[in-house]
Amino acid sequence: MPTVKLIEEGSDDLRIQAVFADIKATRKITKIPAIWQALANDPISLEMHWLRVKTLMSDGALPRVIKEMIAVAVSVTNGCDYCINSHLTAAENLGMTDEQRNELFAVIGLYNQFNALVQAYQLEPDTLPKAARE
Amino acid sequence: MPTVKLIEEGSDDLRIQAVFADIKATRKITKIPAIWQALANDPISLEMHWLRVKTLMSDGALPRVIKEMIAVAVSVTNGCDYCINSHLTAAENLGMTDEQRNELFAVIGLYNQFNALVQAYQLEPDTLPKAARE
Amino acid sequence: MPTVKLIEEGSDDLRIQAVFADIKATRKITKIPAIWQALANDPISLEMHWLRVKTLMSDGALPRVIKEMIAVAVSVTNGCDYCINSHLTAAENLGMTDEQRNELFAVIGLYNQFNALVQAYQLEPDTLPKAARE
Amino acid sequence: MPTVKLIEEGSDDLRIQAVFADIKATRKITKIPAIWQALANDPISLEMHWLRVKTLMSDGALPRVIKEMIAVAVSVTNGCDYCINSHLTAAENLGMTDEQRNELFAVIGLYNQFNALVQAYQLEPDTLPKAARE
Amino acid sequence: MPTVKLIEEGSDDLRIQAVFADIKATRKITKIPAIWQALANDPISLEMHWLRVKTLMSDGALPRVIKEMIAVAVSVTNGCDYCINSHLTAAENLGMTDEQRNELFAVIGLYNQFNALVQAYQLEPDTLPKAARE
Amino acid sequence: MPTVKLIEEGSDDLRIQAVFADIKATRKITKIPAIWQALANDPISLEMHWLRVKTLMSDGALPRVIKEMIAVAVSVTNGCDYCINSHLTAAENLGMTDEQRNELFAVIGLYNQFNALVQAYQLEPDTLPKAARE
Repeated sequence: MPTVKLIEEGSDDLRIQAVFADIKATRKITKIPAIWQALANDPISLEMHWLRVKTLMSDGALPRVIKEMIAVAVSVTNGCDYCINSHLTAAENLGMTDEQRNELFAVIGLYNQFNALVQAYQLEPDTLPKAARE
Repeated sequence: MPTVKLIEEGSDDLRIQAVFADIKATRKITKIPAIWQALANDPISLEMHWLRVKTLMSDGALPRVIKEMIAVAVSVTNGCDYCINSHLTAAENLGMTDEQRNELFAVIGLYNQFNALVQAYQLEPDTLPKAARE
Repeated sequence: MPTVKLIEEGSDDLRIQAVFADIKATRKITKIPAIWQALANDPISLEMHWLRVKTLMSDGALPRVIKEMIAVAVSVTNGCDYCINSHLTAAENLGMTDEQRNELFAVIGLYNQFNALVQAYQLEPDTLPKAARE
Repeated sequence: MPTVKLIEEGSDDLRIQAVFADIKATRKITKIPAIWQALANDPISLEMHWLRVKTLMSDGALPRVIKEMIAVAVSVTNGCDYCINSHLTAAENLGMTDEQRNELFAVIGLYNQFNALVQAYQLEPDTLPKAARE
Repeated sequence: MPTVKLIEEGSDDLRIQAVFADIKATRKITKIPAIWQALANDPISLEMHWLRVKTLMSDGALPRVIKEMIAVAVSVTNGCDYCINSHLTAAENLGMTDEQRNELFAVIGLYNQFNALVQAYQLEPDTLPKAARE
Repeated sequence: MPTVKLIEEGSDDLRIQAVFADIKATRKITKIPAIWQALANDPISLEMHWLRVKTLMSDGALPRVIKEMIAVAVSVTNGCDYCINSHLTAAENLGMTDEQRNELFAVIGLYNQFNALVQAYQLEPDTLPKAARE
């Protein structure tokens, strides 16, 4: 059960109305996801976070579908159910194929294993050949 | 300091020699990364893990550079220093630009924040519109 | 579903009875929270943990409401649903306002983001000016 | 070793100069912490993050020293060395006593333990008596 | 709700049939656990993972029941509900007593606490007396 | 660098002296590990934690060497360098062989992978056949 009130779309607050309308128009959805309803308890916070998400999670140096896959990787590693569902659906709607999803999950699984092995072995970073890193 | 012996390249074990040679040829590197030297304490494990990495971490449904970025996202979220350095260097050597790295880091940061907010709010997954999910 | 039996309040074990009575009196509650019912499978463990919680989670150098907020920060970062609900309710019952909860959540979210960014950047600790730290 | 260039204070970029000057004035420090030097690789990101930190990490519904303690709790739970040092120093400079630090650490340790126990027991949240939660 | 289709036992794919039959025979169970049904979306991945689990999770230098307890420790620390249930049941079916489970949970809890305290104190590893470590 | 003073063995505090002497006698070591030196900033906390460790980390329903391996599993999953070194050395000194260490690390690695896959697949716990669980 949510720990805060989820602000409904018919809110009297004009800033909330404006952000909710922009979310629906930008994402082409008809229902506001719960995360934005929760953030709306603090309208300034809602505005700031949405502006950030809208700007960053659009096509840029990386296409948006790749950014959603990266968000899936973070969310799986943190074990956030809501977030996994949300970013996976976004990636699928942006064209991620089943084969890509299988590879995404496999890479996430594999490196959670290798991260643990590296911690167990207590390895120091390899000396890196990349010039720009020096 | 490593918790296991790092097996050197001149090992007498033929299986270790074969895997080490394949790693250097496949990755076009001249020095074996420490993770493979550590895994070589158990040659069967070394073979199996390398076969898996070689197969999965090549161009497939997703290009290898994207897979390395996903591995960065996992490694940053787990806080594995060796792994962050390793996958970041791999991604850079495969052509990741500074702008792409900035976006990658920004997405990782943003969704570690949102994962925490979603946990704090205790949100249930949104009802998802994707047909294939039902 | 719980992985252990939850020991009911009418237990025959006198140590369990004594601890349960003390929990209800100290916390001014009428029902024993599930964590104590689970710990009661090992009465010595129950006694020891309750003594620790009773002592530490009272007003000291820090007021108890602040300690409950710190427990919320730990629990959100670990993603423990039971714990988030438990400590949030405790903090609210001790007087935490909605504005304080909003700030608490915002700080937790912000520093989960910055923790990830710092890992991505692989930063060494700044040289610290505090005399006592040297 | 940092994975990005740390932008020095004498940068030609006027936005970077302005943010760096504001950080030093606001925090009353003479040297820019590494996190801001790293973020300065993307000046817009630098501005946005600093504005957020400056606004949130000031006295509000919660005093800033408490917010720094909450940031310590998050950073310890995530295992971020840079962040632990940074927020601990900030809290100390804002007046956190040794007794408060001892209690802060004890609460963080205790609830990392209880979070794990609750996961092991697979407990469902207790029914909560708080009216506002319903 | 699962994010992928759970492949049923009557699958036409002969590799899937063979692995499912081997899982049931090896584990002496009549129903395929969901993790294998999910992995079966990629039959090669299913084969490889099952071969790995079958080989590693049998009596070796460590008895299987101890390996299942170690898997419980990992799963509790990561907060994976499915995994906790799965490995706990396996350990119980292999003879883990209630007293052993209580000690297992207590050790997991205790060291999640000490891990956090060590991070808070920012301790460097002790100089280790073991000859083989040098 | 430690965030608290490490209390030296020649401390004037009689409780600290007593605990330090008991640690050295019980563990048959000549130097106090840093974690106890850090905890000694709060002598009551030192006594309580040592009593807990001394009691739990001895042969019981599970032998101590197995408990140290479980502590390694927790510490690797949390990425605590000090703790990994400490518990690994303890396990080795209690007789853990190289083959057992290899299997321990392999199980830890494998289930960090499976935990991530289960999160990605969002699996509900299997219906469990164990009578005692109902």
